[in-house]
Amino acid sequence: MTRCERLTKLVAERELDQLFVSDLVNVRYLTGFTGTNGACLMGADRLIFFTDFRYIERAEQEIGPEWERPAAERELVPQIAARMTGRVGFEDAKLSVRQLARLEAAVGEDVDLIPAGGLVEQLRAAKEPDELERIAAAAELTDGVYRWALEQGLGGRTERDVARACEARLRELGAEPSFPPIVATAENGAVPHAEPGDREIGPAELVVFDMGALLDGYCSDCTRTFATGEVEEEARQVYELVLSAQAAALEAIGPGRSGKEVDAVPRGMIAEAGHGEHFGHGTGHGVGLEVHEGPRLATTSEDELGEGNVVTVEPGVYLPGSFGVRIEDLVVVTADGHRNLSGLPKDLQIVD
Amino acid sequence: MTRCERLTKLVAERELDQLFVSDLVNVRYLTGFTGTNGACLMGADRLIFFTDFRYIERAEQEIGPEWERPAAERELVPQIAARMTGRVGFEDAKLSVRQLARLEAAVGEDVDLIPAGGLVEQLRAAKEPDELERIAAAAELTDGVYRWALEQGLGGRTERDVARACEARLRELGAEPSFPPIVATAENGAVPHAEPGDREIGPAELVVFDMGALLDGYCSDCTRTFATGEVEEEARQVYELVLSAQAAALEAIGPGRSGKEVDAVPRGMIAEAGHGEHFGHGTGHGVGLEVHEGPRLATTSEDELGEGNVVTVEPGVYLPGSFGVRIEDLVVVTADGHRNLSGLPKDLQIVD
Repeated sequence: MTRCERLTKLVAERELDQLFVSDLVNVRYLTGFTGTNGACLMGADRLIFFTDFRYIERAEQEIGPEWERPAAERELVPQIAARMTGRVGFEDAKLSVRQLARLEAAVGEDVDLIPAGGLVEQLRAAKEPDELERIAAAAELTDGVYRWALEQGLGGRTERDVARACEARLRELGAEPSFPPIVATAENGAVPHAEPGDREIGPAELVVFDMGALLDGYCSDCTRTFATGEVEEEARQVYELVLSAQAAALEAIGPGRSGKEVDAVPRGMIAEAGHGEHFGHGTGHGVGLEVHEGPRLATTSEDELGEGNVVTVEPGVYLPGSFGVRIEDLVVVTADGHRNLSGLPKDLQIVD
Repeated sequence: MTRCERLTKLVAERELDQLFVSDLVNVRYLTGFTGTNGACLMGADRLIFFTDFRYIERAEQEIGPEWERPAAERELVPQIAARMTGRVGFEDAKLSVRQLARLEAAVGEDVDLIPAGGLVEQLRAAKEPDELERIAAAAELTDGVYRWALEQGLGGRTERDVARACEARLRELGAEPSFPPIVATAENGAVPHAEPGDREIGPAELVVFDMGALLDGYCSDCTRTFATGEVEEEARQVYELVLSAQAAALEAIGPGRSGKEVDAVPRGMIAEAGHGEHFGHGTGHGVGLEVHEGPRLATTSEDELGEGNVVTVEPGVYLPGSFGVRIEDLVVVTADGHRNLSGLPKDLQIVD
């Protein structure tokens, strides 16, 4: 089944006549459209794509013949409203209150607008083979940038210099950063979302290094923690704890396992070692067209893993004022477990 | 008056007890906070800022003592809802339908949630002196990148090469592109939002070149159309038409003028020359923390210009299948007219 066929099935299961897709990433997933103003309306017997005059030519090139393309006006709402009939689902996590009010004012009396959650996101979570190839390519490219960065050494450079150089390198290789790289040394590593700053990376420090590529529309995400020389015993112990928790989390990955269940594995090990309060984020998240998507591996996750999901596995321990350790792989959920897309070693690497 | 004092006045004028600010750019404008999860609740006697545990340290550094900062939880909604009282305005163009539903379920019975439009955006449109300095610096840096690009020549390079080189140059100079640069030669220039592609820039073509910098939080935006050799008579005539329309639009800028009125000036001239249907976008838009903000210069604009507004002035003529011309300056509205922040010449430049 094509994406649109699978979505049409989900739409029918929800007893909706149509789904209004306004989120641009979802529009791109369904149609291939890459412009900044577009929307779809899809029902059992009709696929309609809307954009404005600026993107007519692009839409002609990018969008397949199965999509009807009405003449484009700058304001899409009146055109879209005129084509709505019956029970119409909308993406309530994405549509703004004002956009909904405008739609409500413009639709006919026979139209019911129904919050439909993330139906396209649900499809997107199960990757198709060519999507997996693209994510694997983004991951491989990222591995290469890590190796390149380590060859140049970390000690004596500022966090910002290392991060900037990696961003430039990603771009030289035809990608973009999938998010601003994190390079956080010593106690900065204890702040999970530190921005790389003027701090110079000193000797015998732990450096948390989190980076990904956006290549051909798809993202990757990988974290390693490196040491610039022999680190003290506590740091080494925490590193080994995170490493074994990460390995156990990987082992727990497989179809049918819940996101909550997988998250509990490293969380339990880290808590048992006395660091429960030092692991303040989820174990992982889906990656695809966006660097954060479904499914989630977290205490509050309601997702169940299935074949073709792509998730990060990234437990961490952060000791405020001292250091942090996070180790993150990107993996595909397979019929019998997982396939790891991250190819970098995970034993503590001592780099210059 | 400080930003918060001015906003508190607007909030009172709307007969609101509090304003809930959830848009991150608006949060940054009010508080200085640069993280990715934060919100404010402001009333006459109380300013409250909310973020989650990841950003506690950043919030301590960035946010002034006038803001109360309750202990941070990952889920902000319950905390925020608990502090709401009376008539609470929210940013209906930004808040999603789902976010509003969650808030509605969490607030007390005495709370009325009221769509309040863009109150912070209204403040943001009138720039303060230090904001003008930062925008001017971003514009000056962009001018420099244009000069640098022209020194290297355009002919024989692909659109993408030129665009990539300029992005890299912006970054070398400590900025980011404020949007992906547009380099569109010959008939590609007739597509207002073309992405730079593999097309090689040939001799005697018109090249539409649109670029801006994001520097120190603030954006710039500038377009020039260059010729790679002597172009044919029609192209030259269209260039002169756009140039005189742009000059007339600049003359029309001043406090008290409406966005519609200013837009009508170049639009009338272009229509009179027989190209009315070839100018399919607005004359300009505000620029600041975002590269597209208020006020708008357009047929549908309801904005009135005031001192301290920063707007683009960018009429264009696009002949499908042939070429396009757009000339864009960034200007500040002053007491007696405007001050131009773009320093590049506007006579048709012939470059190699």
